[in-house]
Amino acid sequence: MMAAVVTGRCFGVGVGPGDPELMTVKALRILRTSPAVAYFSATGRSSNARQIVSEFLTPDQEELHLVYPVTTEGLPMGQDYEAVMAKFYDASADRVAGVLSRGQDVAVLCEGDPLFHGSFMYLHNRLSDRFPTEVVPGVPSILAGSAVLGTPLVCLDEVLSVLSGTLNPADLEARLVESDAAVIMKVGRNLEKVRQAVTRAGLLNRAWYVERATMAGERVMRLDQVDPASSPYFSMVVIPSRLAPTR
Amino acid sequence: MMAAVVTGRCFGVGVGPGDPELMTVKALRILRTSPAVAYFSATGRSSNARQIVSEFLTPDQEELHLVYPVTTEGLPMGQDYEAVMAKFYDASADRVAGVLSRGQDVAVLCEGDPLFHGSFMYLHNRLSDRFPTEVVPGVPSILAGSAVLGTPLVCLDEVLSVLSGTLNPADLEARLVESDAAVIMKVGRNLEKVRQAVTRAGLLNRAWYVERATMAGERVMRLDQVDPASSPYFSMVVIPSRLAPTR
Repeated sequence: MMAAVVTGRCFGVGVGPGDPELMTVKALRILRTSPAVAYFSATGRSSNARQIVSEFLTPDQEELHLVYPVTTEGLPMGQDYEAVMAKFYDASADRVAGVLSRGQDVAVLCEGDPLFHGSFMYLHNRLSDRFPTEVVPGVPSILAGSAVLGTPLVCLDEVLSVLSGTLNPADLEARLVESDAAVIMKVGRNLEKVRQAVTRAGLLNRAWYVERATMAGERVMRLDQVDPASSPYFSMVVIPSRLAPTR
Repeated sequence: MMAAVVTGRCFGVGVGPGDPELMTVKALRILRTSPAVAYFSATGRSSNARQIVSEFLTPDQEELHLVYPVTTEGLPMGQDYEAVMAKFYDASADRVAGVLSRGQDVAVLCEGDPLFHGSFMYLHNRLSDRFPTEVVPGVPSILAGSAVLGTPLVCLDEVLSVLSGTLNPADLEARLVESDAAVIMKVGRNLEKVRQAVTRAGLLNRAWYVERATMAGERVMRLDQVDPASSPYFSMVVIPSRLAPTR
């Protein structure tokens, strides 16, 4: 009679927006008890998610650093981006599966929340039918943004739109016009396009720029004050609630 | 020469969606070190936020229970809802200010996040110009919803709309039609209206009903399976990402 193989569990762990203290108690517990941690990063960059939790990692934890092979901009001629990325996610899932198959848990570190604009979904859909998988939600960057602004994001009957700065200018403008409150994520090099869309939608006077919310180097200013050359990828534009009471 | 009066600090503390372990480390620290805690509830009801943190409270902490005098439905004839509520928030802010003026910190407990559909804004706008005020963001219920579903909420270029079940049916339908992904909060007794709007928007086959996410009594089912008589206020409808990969 063979012993049953007990596999490890795959945790998608939201580590919050930047301040390590904004991790949940559950995220911290799972991080501390997982023999292995995994995280994505761009080539030549460190992982923001790993940076957030670095003080809690120990030398005996195995680290799976999953390095994106390309970015949309840096693709060699003749290669299909979708195909290259699918192959990369397959290989990443295989690395995680290798640890899980040995019976060890893996904490996949995700900035903010695992299922809100993140890469965890590419592991989740490749692993969750074979291994026990659990998602630990986290504080998303958009709520770190309203916290540092000290302004209600949305209230009462209002509609909040969460938009991506990668949308085309006409779509961005149209979505903004019909929003009571909005957050635009993935601003970075899209800043000038985003600012023009916000301006055309008549919302520039309500728009804030927030960079590295709750982290060292946090910057908060009115959108019309930002130098476009200075905007990193992890910045956002926040157009808070219209109806919320002000001081 | 008089000694300067050092006032306490007012913290808006997001306690997360329900599971006490989904509080942030910072929320827990502030909760444990604040001599006083404040929370809202309806008349005759306990506070959900207090319930979430109850295991961490100690008998020596002062509790300010701020009880709503009325609901929209229960207003006596001839009284103006806005005026009654403004008076209530004034009195609530006065109670919190009384503690702050003695030099003691107050943690205002907020389900989910303090500035995302919450009553904390009514204290914040009455206190933040007189007392040091800080917002501690929390995990919002909408991300607890996607976590228990195990389905990406939004990804890539998609637009996420966060809607209130209190919207009128035509607005709900129009907003849903144009959304890539959506969450409808404050469902409760609006369930049948919400379901009709989702159906007319052609989204019933993608819609999930989530109640008490991450709490005891959690229920998850397809929206077309829900008995409207059974839906509490703190339930939501989640229409996850269209583009996210599935298993």
